[in-house]
Amino acid sequence: MSLLVVGSVAFDTVETPFGRAERVLGGSATFFAFAASYFCKQRLVGIVGNDFPRAILDEFGTRGIDIAGLTISRDGKTFHWTGKYEGDMNAAQTLGVSLNVLGEYKAAVPEAFRDSPYVFLANDHPQTQLDVLAAVKGEPFSVADTRDFWISEEPKLLEKVLGAVDGLVLNEHEARLLTGEKNLVRAGMDIMKRGPEFAVIKKGEHGSLLFSSEGTFALPAYPLFDVRDPTGAGDAFAGGLMGYLAASGQRSLEAVRRGLTWGTVCASVAVQDFSVEPFRRVTREQLNTRHDAFMHAIRF
Amino acid sequence: MSLLVVGSVAFDTVETPFGRAERVLGGSATFFAFAASYFCKQRLVGIVGNDFPRAILDEFGTRGIDIAGLTISRDGKTFHWTGKYEGDMNAAQTLGVSLNVLGEYKAAVPEAFRDSPYVFLANDHPQTQLDVLAAVKGEPFSVADTRDFWISEEPKLLEKVLGAVDGLVLNEHEARLLTGEKNLVRAGMDIMKRGPEFAVIKKGEHGSLLFSSEGTFALPAYPLFDVRDPTGAGDAFAGGLMGYLAASGQRSLEAVRRGLTWGTVCASVAVQDFSVEPFRRVTREQLNTRHDAFMHAIRF
Repeated sequence: MSLLVVGSVAFDTVETPFGRAERVLGGSATFFAFAASYFCKQRLVGIVGNDFPRAILDEFGTRGIDIAGLTISRDGKTFHWTGKYEGDMNAAQTLGVSLNVLGEYKAAVPEAFRDSPYVFLANDHPQTQLDVLAAVKGEPFSVADTRDFWISEEPKLLEKVLGAVDGLVLNEHEARLLTGEKNLVRAGMDIMKRGPEFAVIKKGEHGSLLFSSEGTFALPAYPLFDVRDPTGAGDAFAGGLMGYLAASGQRSLEAVRRGLTWGTVCASVAVQDFSVEPFRRVTREQLNTRHDAFMHAIRF
Repeated sequence: MSLLVVGSVAFDTVETPFGRAERVLGGSATFFAFAASYFCKQRLVGIVGNDFPRAILDEFGTRGIDIAGLTISRDGKTFHWTGKYEGDMNAAQTLGVSLNVLGEYKAAVPEAFRDSPYVFLANDHPQTQLDVLAAVKGEPFSVADTRDFWISEEPKLLEKVLGAVDGLVLNEHEARLLTGEKNLVRAGMDIMKRGPEFAVIKKGEHGSLLFSSEGTFALPAYPLFDVRDPTGAGDAFAGGLMGYLAASGQRSLEAVRRGLTWGTVCASVAVQDFSVEPFRRVTREQLNTRHDAFMHAIRF
């Protein structure tokens, strides 16, 4: 089934202990869509500037990502994030943000996208997330991500998002910031009280936790020894989860659990090189092989 | 089957954001033995001072821990560790160490203990660990723990220990220090080259990793929301693992994997209150219930 994603499509300039990548493809929706493209067709809503390469637009198409909802601005430049990872690479240091066309963006969901049964609201302004949810007909299965900036700056709008979605996916720092709870189990339980049916707390190299009415589910990360650039790992994680659910037409908590194993595998692919490079190389067959290895590493 | 443990029996003075405990029962062998006592009978080798309470010696006995190998010094005082946990409580800050009777201790393994088929060398001087291994007859299944101090101060002796044991259990900081590898998967693989058949890297609230010739196995921690004092969690983890193996008479890698789930559960009990208090309250039935909950939280 079709999966709609709204979020940023961007250029990233990233430095890690393993190298530097200048103005490469990035953005929350991009990493999400590249990962989910192994599972299902997608519909992308977002905006890029007049500097965005035609070749990449074509690449989205080749991956089964419909860009009819991607506004290509004539007047501005593409959102550009500059960041750095040091030490154990668990947290990005933002060195610069040029919002550019993203600054004034109002999400426009094409008519043809409004019957999407699966919706992912990647990290974006909560108002954009609410606008997209309002535009979609019926009762889509909707999951949102967010980040520290929106938690601090738009808490009321974000609460509305939490009341409207089926699930929330966020990292451990964001979960602590959102709830004021240091302990992640308490944080997860607190998020549950705010509306969503489930919450996933991503812990990077330490795996993830799923909270729902059926209790807590814990998943380790895929054990990796070659992490080169963590950018986009969380978005790719969500892409694997939502891609799996949309492809199989499921939305049960049991299916979310299984989806998290695919999210884990997609995140482990994303971090092995800069930008979306790993996804340009990895085949679905290789993804399956890694998933088998992961299940072997966690299963009894 | 009988499980021999050598390590420290101590007094701890601990401060955490949740309170302070003054001169309470602690030590690597103590936490290990209290956890393992849910599974099998044990033989304890170590030393305490003339200030050690008779009531606690009796408590060891009640738990099926044979203290015929516990020297009670007439001339000195019991080893005393003072430490503090702050913030996310992932690492202890040592404020003071009074070695006391531990300073001059030479391990003496009673004749009756020398047929032990399972041996755990809790954190201790590597020479003590080697002496105990040499004293035990036959081919016991042996696992060692260690800590930063011995890695830095006695690297050669520690290498000998690694060459002599079946398994090594250590925390992530120690694994990084021992191998010089930041990445834990690389660290685990490096440890494997030094002799042991398997290595377990404990990551505290983030679970554990098992390395062996059969690849890597990853386990999350038990999701807890009431951590009051992490002291002894790693020792209790090893106690659950070794207790399970000794009780079932197993030593296969598959059994080690299952044992790690019991270790995880024992560690989750240990951190819920100061000293060994949680083990004074928790029944085997409650341990089983928590293990069921844990398996539910990680199993597919």
